[in-house]
Amino acid sequence: MKEEVFFGESMPKVKKEYKDLYEAIVHLNEAVYTGKTLDYKTQKLIALGINAAVSDERATKKQMLSAMKEFNASKDEIVDVLRMVLLTAGMPPFVKAMRVLYELKE
Amino acid sequence: MKEEVFFGESMPKVKKEYKDLYEAIVHLNEAVYTGKTLDYKTQKLIALGINAAVSDERATKKQMLSAMKEFNASKDEIVDVLRMVLLTAGMPPFVKAMRVLYELKE
Amino acid sequence: MKEEVFFGESMPKVKKEYKDLYEAIVHLNEAVYTGKTLDYKTQKLIALGINAAVSDERATKKQMLSAMKEFNASKDEIVDVLRMVLLTAGMPPFVKAMRVLYELKE
Amino acid sequence: MKEEVFFGESMPKVKKEYKDLYEAIVHLNEAVYTGKTLDYKTQKLIALGINAAVSDERATKKQMLSAMKEFNASKDEIVDVLRMVLLTAGMPPFVKAMRVLYELKE
Amino acid sequence: MKEEVFFGESMPKVKKEYKDLYEAIVHLNEAVYTGKTLDYKTQKLIALGINAAVSDERATKKQMLSAMKEFNASKDEIVDVLRMVLLTAGMPPFVKAMRVLYELKE
Amino acid sequence: MKEEVFFGESMPKVKKEYKDLYEAIVHLNEAVYTGKTLDYKTQKLIALGINAAVSDERATKKQMLSAMKEFNASKDEIVDVLRMVLLTAGMPPFVKAMRVLYELKE
Repeated sequence: MKEEVFFGESMPKVKKEYKDLYEAIVHLNEAVYTGKTLDYKTQKLIALGINAAVSDERATKKQMLSAMKEFNASKDEIVDVLRMVLLTAGMPPFVKAMRVLYELKE
Repeated sequence: MKEEVFFGESMPKVKKEYKDLYEAIVHLNEAVYTGKTLDYKTQKLIALGINAAVSDERATKKQMLSAMKEFNASKDEIVDVLRMVLLTAGMPPFVKAMRVLYELKE
Repeated sequence: MKEEVFFGESMPKVKKEYKDLYEAIVHLNEAVYTGKTLDYKTQKLIALGINAAVSDERATKKQMLSAMKEFNASKDEIVDVLRMVLLTAGMPPFVKAMRVLYELKE
Repeated sequence: MKEEVFFGESMPKVKKEYKDLYEAIVHLNEAVYTGKTLDYKTQKLIALGINAAVSDERATKKQMLSAMKEFNASKDEIVDVLRMVLLTAGMPPFVKAMRVLYELKE
Repeated sequence: MKEEVFFGESMPKVKKEYKDLYEAIVHLNEAVYTGKTLDYKTQKLIALGINAAVSDERATKKQMLSAMKEFNASKDEIVDVLRMVLLTAGMPPFVKAMRVLYELKE
Repeated sequence: MKEEVFFGESMPKVKKEYKDLYEAIVHLNEAVYTGKTLDYKTQKLIALGINAAVSDERATKKQMLSAMKEFNASKDEIVDVLRMVLLTAGMPPFVKAMRVLYELKE
């Protein structure tokens, strides 16, 4: 499975104890990342934009780390995503995401 | 100014009556679309993802129309964006955005 | 599949054109409604509470209709759900959901 | 007063300093928990679902603790509530609530 | 009771059928508007800002109408509130609220 | 520039590395605080109400500190703002903001 961002530490337990839920989540995850036209990187940047827009700082951090690790996303690329957050979700989510980014890069 | 999506019918009045606000909004808009690395199309798809994730159906529709018109986005490309909405924001915003998309394409 | 509430008019098209997504959604839907201890009715009332709490009036209406049809939910039962909405999400979502309910019952 | 979940440590101070507000909150709390048809347990599970759906981790934790203590809710019952969160609010709130649950149970 | 904004057309029915809920809501409403230091007008403008910030267009419209009627709020005063919405909640809620305002003034 | 609340520790870095974004944000900030009719204090209280209503505890805290420091806002004035939060956004955001307030005052 490609995407581990939302799965965190509880997922192994969910897999063991609630196998039906786990399998449905894995299935969904595979389906959403099997886009027909957009590449994986673009899809991940969109997910990052959404996580940041709703001020989910934990998911934002995980998406940033994953973007840096999986396809070597630069700080400028991530800031370009956050520009859209500033436009469509306003200053507070933008500032939070910038703080997360700076904490990661230091 | 590139982006007209949020500006709708009231913006000409804002321009006339609240020129200081209008100019600040135009300035912001220009700054966010002057990304360093991501192209305009990717930025617009991220904005679409965010609009759809927060169930803003009017903005979602405008972003879809703009994506189709400005860079000839296909239905499959838009659905690839909405896959991320399904993953990160859940079923209701995904279903709403799919309905908007089908209404546009018919 | 038990639950049709979120699926609306676009789902047949999704089934035809994006079969992978459709199957993942059906899989998820089945997994979430296969609770181990709570009965279907309680699960549906929880879903109604969540839909109403986030002011999703369309989903709220569909859940109410589905609750009335599938297990003959009374107006008082639905109001009991909305009491929780008032407590945990405040007056505006409560008032919206009451309006939806009164429109359905008249 | 039955429900103490939202009241936390500041409520005694509110009671002392802003008695009018305190009394109105107590009144509201009593009214919402005096449902006509649903029992207290079901109402509490609905409140838990709403708290989890909006990613309010502190309230989610308090509701889980309260559900375990007041009516001996099992882990499976709580997960059945969270299944609805997964369906109606998506993966991130579900994963957060599962993490809260696992932290409580360990 | 001072504030009728949220109460809309369903409240008379709630009063008749769910008197306990109605009384608790009236009590809460009275308590919140009995501020110690801020005047009624300022409190109403704050409520307008919050309604607009969460994109509740119906409540936004009612608050604007109420502000115009009850204390003769000018368009400029309302726009001054919406400036804060632009700063703290971003462009989409600001643009929606401006559209509501222009529709009211025409 | 008057308002520093949202700008936090990352803004000096944004100023240095993303000057175009920084300038657009400063421009926006100046435009929104140049209201025509409402004074700065009222605008700040509206911003506080919005921050608290969306449960942004960090921004809420900064706005409270700023209100106390810049125009000597009393606890009662801040509670009067939070009364509106209770009315329009419900109990959980109100309780969170009260906790923030009590932590600041002790």
